[in-house]
Parts: sequence; structure tokens; C-alpha cells
Amino acid sequence: MTAPLRILVATNPAQLAIFRIEQHHIDAAMARCTLALPALAFDFCAIDGPDFIETLGRAYALLGFRFPADRIRPHGQALKLIQLSAAGMEHLLPLDWLPKQVALATASGVHGPKLREWAGMVFMMLHTHMPHFITAQRAHEWSKAFSSPIAGRRALIYGTGGLGTAIAGAAHRLGIVTTGVRRTPAPVRGFDSVIGVDAARDVIGEADFVVLATPLTPATRHMMNADMFARMRKGAGFANFGRGGLVDQDAMIAALTARHVGGAIIDVTDPEPPPAESPLWDTPNLVITPHVSCDDPDAYIPRTLDIFLDNLARSLAGRTIRNRVVPSRAY
Amino acid sequence: MTAPLRILVATNPAQLAIFRIEQHHIDAAMARCTLALPALAFDFCAIDGPDFIETLGRAYALLGFRFPADRIRPHGQALKLIQLSAAGMEHLLPLDWLPKQVALATASGVHGPKLREWAGMVFMMLHTHMPHFITAQRAHEWSKAFSSPIAGRRALIYGTGGLGTAIAGAAHRLGIVTTGVRRTPAPVRGFDSVIGVDAARDVIGEADFVVLATPLTPATRHMMNADMFARMRKGAGFANFGRGGLVDQDAMIAALTARHVGGAIIDVTDPEPPPAESPLWDTPNLVITPHVSCDDPDAYIPRTLDIFLDNLARSLAGRTIRNRVVPSRAY
Repeated sequence: MTAPLRILVATNPAQLAIFRIEQHHIDAAMARCTLALPALAFDFCAIDGPDFIETLGRAYALLGFRFPADRIRPHGQALKLIQLSAAGMEHLLPLDWLPKQVALATASGVHGPKLREWAGMVFMMLHTHMPHFITAQRAHEWSKAFSSPIAGRRALIYGTGGLGTAIAGAAHRLGIVTTGVRRTPAPVRGFDSVIGVDAARDVIGEADFVVLATPLTPATRHMMNADMFARMRKGAGFANFGRGGLVDQDAMIAALTARHVGGAIIDVTDPEPPPAESPLWDTPNLVITPHVSCDDPDAYIPRTLDIFLDNLARSLAGRTIRNRVVPSRAY
Repeated sequence: MTAPLRILVATNPAQLAIFRIEQHHIDAAMARCTLALPALAFDFCAIDGPDFIETLGRAYALLGFRFPADRIRPHGQALKLIQLSAAGMEHLLPLDWLPKQVALATASGVHGPKLREWAGMVFMMLHTHMPHFITAQRAHEWSKAFSSPIAGRRALIYGTGGLGTAIAGAAHRLGIVTTGVRRTPAPVRGFDSVIGVDAARDVIGEADFVVLATPLTPATRHMMNADMFARMRKGAGFANFGRGGLVDQDAMIAALTARHVGGAIIDVTDPEPPPAESPLWDTPNLVITPHVSCDDPDAYIPRTLDIFLDNLARSLAGRTIRNRVVPSRAY
């Protein structure tokens, strides 16, 4: 009899309940799973607990959310797979600590169904001038602004991965024409067209909506700066579903205050939350949601575990890992 | 040669441009029209102008928006049709001045396509706790609240006419189960079920969303009062697309302030706009839009004129008038 494959679930008492993987989630995922897998043993360890390092030394796979890189650096020889239960992994950068034989995978795609609805709402809120009405209400002002049906408007969506594709799906349901932006332009299913970053700079002024759904890397930090906001069409809408660090927030605040950008709805800020004295809170025509656009409390953990078990089977069979992070591009 | 049929277009310099019928709108509508109509002559007269009464005396039909009843009372014998370019007509009540031979028709239905999108946004905003986030932002607070996909939630929609049907259509696209409320319960296309007002009082607590899209009449004034808000499920959402007078605003403010109702999005208030010192502006979890949810600046007048020409042909042929107001029920 072979010993079971050991899986370490890194727990974090500080994390919100909807992100906490518990035994009953594992049981349900195993019951759903139709893949051929060996016997598995799941160890639950607090990321900052005394047993963590020793348990990690025996683990074939590590599963968790937002662990600090320095805690997983002293891993053992058995480790082959690190599965993050989140789509973003910029907190693990740079990846110089990651040995070649360990595949690091995100939970990209887990957010799709929930985000598709949310993004549709955000397009409609920008289109109907909802940020303007919300700002006017604060000032006790009844300030009409009209809008026709949304079909035919244009969205420029930075990022053509899991988030970007879900956002493009929302756009298409509303009749919005989508252009995806990607490091290396190539057709992507779900987008009307896909262009590169340089080309996007030239056509951003044609978009009614500019949407960020791209990873945060050294190359994308502050990609939306004063120049890019200035290139947007006056009155166009802006949304950020990616990371707060993608945006030069001072430039965004200036573009909104000058009424150049018509409205913005952001689910991410830098830092999170913004300090109480941050000017973001009172910026006109800016709506802030607290990093919740993608999180489906019922489905988040189950979908993450389905991706993990699939990747575990792929790892054992020597096949390609889904959502594997490529260290050289940093996502 | 017969004299042309005279149509009086009542103009109002105070009204917003998007509601103003102009000659080019008439020309375009006549060009679109495939109905057999006699020669028509359109007179444009300001509702408060010196020629109005005399011109009205010669008119077969009167077309306009929100004219005071006392200006159209002294109409002539030729008048057979009054076509309002709005869905609401509570400003003309009571209808004791309206002779039997004059059909009064609203533009009900003109709002459908635009409202369908808007209502979908409102359902999503209520579902995702957007009023809560907006209120938290005012207080510089980052206050997370989660939501699963919206499908399977329940909406109770008061009113099964043009507005209510468009709202039910929006709900269905999102997978929301709809119950319509109507004076005389009977199946209505587009609703999963339709019940009467008394039955609705008993089941309002099962709804995730309570939506008003009903005319304002003496019977519906303040239909949403403290008792009805108390019957709503704690945390449920409320929306009003009808008229501000349908709601006891003090009761709504109390229900929101007590966090019994989870959020409300209202496009109508009583009066409009609310006075600058009204407590509505600062009520927690309340989003006010300035009576714009239905107005499509590109399509409003064209659709109204299409209804008018159809009703004109119906009137001349002695057929049933679309959207004819029934004086006894006051809508």
C-alpha cells in the first residue's frame, strides 16, 4: 500500500469566511470529482503556525490564499504544485524563490459567472451616468442626464484572461463592441478584436468605456496614468477590476475632478482599503466598491477546489497545468 | 377637396428638449407611417399662448405633454383624441372635464426598450448591495458585502402595464422569478404569475425585490406605507419607477434608516425634485435618480408619434384606441 499523497491547505485565521477552505469543502469536491486520483491526505495548517514548515516539507501540493513568499520558500523536495485560491499573485513577486519543478497556478476563471453579471451592471451604471447621479445626490442636487440604449457603444478591455473574457461576455450581452488589449495581440474568443498595448494607446479615445482586467506586474503598474486618462474621450467611463496599482490614482482623481472622465467605478484601490483621509472617497463621479465584484460566497471555494483537483491530476500525469504562472512574464 | 384634419401640438417652452415635438419629428414620423390617413395639418401652439384656445377649437386631435387640464377644458366640438406624450396622466385627474366622445390616450409602452436595460441595472445594484457601498463610501468606509449570482431571486412587481412588463422582461433575462400585482388578477404575458393587491400584501415578505410600476391614482397613493415596508423581508431591495406619490416617503426613510429594507433605488420622488433640505438626500442605502430611467433621448418622440398616428387612424376608423385612459379607474 502506497502512502497517500499529502496536500497542505494553508489556513489563515485573518481571512474572511468566504475564502476559508474547510474539510466539508474538500469532501464535497472529492465527491464531485470524476478524475482518477491516488489516495490523498489533506493537512490543514495555519500559515503562521509552528507546524507549517515541517508539514510543507512533506507536501506534494500546497493550496491557499495570499501566503507570504518567505513562508513557502523552505519547501521540501516533494513539492510539485502550488495552487492559489485567488486570481492575483502579485504578492509573491518576484518569483526568484520558485524552483523549476514547482508549478504555481492561480484560480483564474473562478470568478467568471459572478463577474459577468457585475460587469454588465458596471457598464450600465457608467452608461446611464449613475456616478453623476450619486455625486449629485450627495450635494442634494437633482441633475438630469439622459442616455439611449447601450447597444453599439465601444469598450476597450485591458486583459483577455479569465476576468477580461467574463467582462467581454457581459459587454456582448448588452450589444457593446469589444476590443481586447493584450501584450501579444492575437484573436481571443469572445472579443470582437484584440490589439496590443501600443495600438491601444492610439485608439483609447474611441472607447466609451475603458476597463482594466489585467494582472499587476512591474510592466503594468500605473499603466493608466495622466497621459492615458487625457487620451480618453471626454465623458467616457472607466472601470478597474484588476488591481489598484494599475492606476495612478492621483491622475484618475484629477481626470474625474476636471470632468474629463465622465465616471469611474473601481473595485480595487491602492492600498486597500484607502486610508480614511484619502481623497478617493470624495472624488466626484467615482464609485468605489470594496473588492467584492468577483466573489461569489457560494461558489468561490468549490470552483477553486475543482481547479485544484484538475491540476493535481495534470501534475501527476505530467500534463500542462491550468493557469500556470509563467515567471518571466510575472503572471 | 376636403380641408385637412387639424392636429394641435401643444408646446411648452419650459420643457426639456428631449420631450419637445418639432416639425422634423412629424416629417420623419409621416415618412415612416404606412397607415391610410387623410391630409393632416399640424398647428404648433404654446400651451399658455394667446392662440391656444382658438386653435384647440378647430383641432381633431391634441398632442402634448403635461398640459394643465384647465387649458384644454374649453375644447371644441371637433376634438376626438387627446394623445399624451407621456405615460403618466395623474396631473389631469379627476377626469370630470373629459367628454365621452374624446379619447384620452397615454404613451404607455414608449419607455420599454430603455427601461428594460435600466431595470436590469437596478435589480443588479440592489442585489450586489450597491446602495450600501455608496453609503459606506460617503462615510469613508470600506465595508464588504457579498452576493451570489442573481438567478432564482424573486421580484414582486406592482403594475403589469408597459412599465411593469419591461421590468419583468429585465428580471427574466437575469433569471429572476417574477410575480406581477394587478387590481384584477389574471395571467399577463411576461410574468411568472400575477396576483391581486390583497394577496400581494400577504406574500410581499417572500420577495427579494419589491418594484413599483403602477399609475398614481387615489387608490394607489401611499400604497407603500409603514405597514408594507415592515412586511418586506429584512434586507430586501425596493425600487420605484412609477410616481413618488405611491410611497409614504417618511415610512421609506424610516425602513431604510432602521436597516430593515436593505437598499432602495428610486427614480421618482414627491415632490420632484425633493427640496434641498429633504431628508431623502441623506437617507442611508437610498439612491435617487432624477426621473430619467425611461427616457431615451433618441427614441422618445419618434415612438410617441408612432403611437399617435396609429391612434389617429384608429379614431377615424372608429376602432379601439391604444392606451386609452378609463376615467373610472383613473389610468
